[in-house]
Amino acid sequence: MKLLSAVALSLVVSLAHAENGKPKNIIMVVGDGMGPAFTTAYRYYADDKSSPTIEQTVFDRHLVGMASTYPARVSGYVTDSAAGATALSAGIKSYNGAIGVDENKQSVKTVLEQARQNGLKTGVAVTSQINHATPASYAAHNESRHNYDAIANSYFDDKLNGQFVLDVMLGGGWKYFIREDRNLVEEFKSEGYQYIDNLDQLDTLKPGPVLGLFGDSGMPWALDMQDKPRLPEMVKAAVKQLTNDKGYFLLVEGSQIDWAGHGNDVASAMAEMHDLALTLEWLEQYVQENPDTLVVITADHSTGGFTLAANGDYQWDPDPVKNLSMSLTSLAKEMSASKTPIETAEAALGFELNDTEKSLLQNADFKDVKALYGQLKGLLDIRTNSGWTSSGHTAVDVQIFAMGQGKEHFEGFMDNTDIPKIIFEMMESEK
Amino acid sequence: MKLLSAVALSLVVSLAHAENGKPKNIIMVVGDGMGPAFTTAYRYYADDKSSPTIEQTVFDRHLVGMASTYPARVSGYVTDSAAGATALSAGIKSYNGAIGVDENKQSVKTVLEQARQNGLKTGVAVTSQINHATPASYAAHNESRHNYDAIANSYFDDKLNGQFVLDVMLGGGWKYFIREDRNLVEEFKSEGYQYIDNLDQLDTLKPGPVLGLFGDSGMPWALDMQDKPRLPEMVKAAVKQLTNDKGYFLLVEGSQIDWAGHGNDVASAMAEMHDLALTLEWLEQYVQENPDTLVVITADHSTGGFTLAANGDYQWDPDPVKNLSMSLTSLAKEMSASKTPIETAEAALGFELNDTEKSLLQNADFKDVKALYGQLKGLLDIRTNSGWTSSGHTAVDVQIFAMGQGKEHFEGFMDNTDIPKIIFEMMESEK
Ligand SMILES: [Zn+2]
Ligand SMILES: [Zn+2]
Repeated sequence: MKLLSAVALSLVVSLAHAENGKPKNIIMVVGDGMGPAFTTAYRYYADDKSSPTIEQTVFDRHLVGMASTYPARVSGYVTDSAAGATALSAGIKSYNGAIGVDENKQSVKTVLEQARQNGLKTGVAVTSQINHATPASYAAHNESRHNYDAIANSYFDDKLNGQFVLDVMLGGGWKYFIREDRNLVEEFKSEGYQYIDNLDQLDTLKPGPVLGLFGDSGMPWALDMQDKPRLPEMVKAAVKQLTNDKGYFLLVEGSQIDWAGHGNDVASAMAEMHDLALTLEWLEQYVQENPDTLVVITADHSTGGFTLAANGDYQWDPDPVKNLSMSLTSLAKEMSASKTPIETAEAALGFELNDTEKSLLQNADFKDVKALYGQLKGLLDIRTNSGWTSSGHTAVDVQIFAMGQGKEHFEGFMDNTDIPKIIFEMMESEK
Repeated sequence: MKLLSAVALSLVVSLAHAENGKPKNIIMVVGDGMGPAFTTAYRYYADDKSSPTIEQTVFDRHLVGMASTYPARVSGYVTDSAAGATALSAGIKSYNGAIGVDENKQSVKTVLEQARQNGLKTGVAVTSQINHATPASYAAHNESRHNYDAIANSYFDDKLNGQFVLDVMLGGGWKYFIREDRNLVEEFKSEGYQYIDNLDQLDTLKPGPVLGLFGDSGMPWALDMQDKPRLPEMVKAAVKQLTNDKGYFLLVEGSQIDWAGHGNDVASAMAEMHDLALTLEWLEQYVQENPDTLVVITADHSTGGFTLAANGDYQWDPDPVKNLSMSLTSLAKEMSASKTPIETAEAALGFELNDTEKSLLQNADFKDVKALYGQLKGLLDIRTNSGWTSSGHTAVDVQIFAMGQGKEHFEGFMDNTDIPKIIFEMMESEK
């Protein structure tokens, strides 16, 4: 008595539509760990309380559907970022930890590789190390996400039709690309790649392939780079480098939303969301000017069990995380080195601590930076009334947002594996 | 530099479309407290683990968009069920506690009242008392949701164009309708309403208005009425009573999803979701046979800060709540009265307790039924790895599902107040 599944129907519709109006450029954006609570929270974080109405965000303007995120049955219902990204890159369910491989550890073709095979330029721009789970699952194949060195090597060693897989690589990763046993930066340079290690150098790039590494593993927190929004800058540069007559495929990741979720750090969660939102606002304009481009935005899963309100109290207040001058990790370090740690905290947080908060911090062990970081997070959880249930991931469905050419194919509910299936269809009819 | 808002655009599109293809019957379904975690959890609860794939649910088949739920600015970002239902019924933001009134406590017209004014039949079918926040916000006006007696009185006293507001009222509420100071049941009977107080009597109804009350306040938990799915039965009967040439407006609420959320009771949360899902599966067939009917399904907010996985563990397991023979509240009472409470628990839960669980329960005070209920809930939280952050509501956006005539007007992101605005437009062009 079941109806024909909505997904099956939408794929049929996709096929019919994709004959016409296929996108030239495809930008896939992953907000790692960005479940529905994060996009909702960002709306209220971005809200100007002095105005009567609550403004829509760039996410709100482009919501088209939602996706389930469960991994292969062997891993239960809660995915990790590797299986989640492999679902999004290759359209298959795999085990948690899998990087572009199926349950039998066999490599599976990704949409980025299909784009490369079709003669498009390809790139990744992420705030994690560029060999982290999400970008790796689009551009590499490995039985385990933890084999960081091997994944970095594969970016140089594994060729597709004699070509490197990626024309543009922007993100973190010095420790994996400049190692004692191998210097991949020098190897890429010898093959004609421009190498930069500072965001300011993005303006100086000449046409051609690029490796840009801006951190040892991940990049610094958005809160510690407020003078230069890092993901928007990288994405603008990546698009410029990739633009060509045949089109391009770019994978973008707001990687550290997930890291803030793992840390139950509401301050960095909101700042990382803002970094991604600024990126999407720029892409919104870009798509208006380049209507042959498709941008699809989703999350691989949600992280932290983040909830807006907690402990029976019907309120959530983002104000206490709106004016931070640095991340809480940096603040904990500064307090540890400060002769007047309370004043240091108040200056960085942007508000006066109350007596309870002061005595909590005054009783802290200022040498234990990690514990101090935990106390600062707890203080902001109470101030904002944020809830968290986990240091890991949760299984709640995630949203799909889309702009530009072909966005209508992503409407309604689908499984995360349907997203690359639709993109594959678009690219097949492109040939 | 902002684009024209998606909602403004969608309303313009709605207006254009509504000229044709307007629905004859409108069924508005509210899953009280049913945030995205609840519909996701239900998919995995309904999943047959022995089959290779995970089946879509009725929710998945009809997802069209999402809605923000914030109340009037005076109440912050986290709504209660009264302001949430007033937003959905009348299209305005009001303060928490408001029943069909604005911030100045002035009555505002609801879509149900508009339907009545247009000559349609009207009804409510809910698992709470029929004068609870959600149905009350569609059919009454009061400055406070807590004025239960006054709201019940208004169902009899307040006439619209000389008519009662509701033709069909199905749900709980004896204590509010049969009181020492007033017997509203007798009053309704004297005005020609059929009165029933047992679900089995639904089959015996003759054409004409109906008052059916099946519980003192709310109805029993779905888990305690497994022989007769209560919401599907009431909705089938309501639709039968309301069907007429001019059409009808029916408000349906799965009220106790919220109550399970408040109690952090994953067992009842899933059973209440199942009761609603069965209702929607019946409506799915009904809409196929009656394509001039529109069904819109949403939630007023999420409850409990429910998360699928907790405590850093990447798994959520619904199996332990799949075979309960009664609610945990009933089980706590039975254990309290039992000479062999552990055996009683195992029989009702449908699995053998492990040693840790046994000793936890054996150390319990069996006279304290409430504490016992808490221990049973905690036991199932650990078994399922469910997380909760609150006994209250949270602000996360909720989904919109739609079937039938005009469902396309509810696609994408909108505010909850846009849902009745679209329905008002449909009904205005109907006159
Ligand atoms: Zn993660
Ligand atoms: Zn509630």
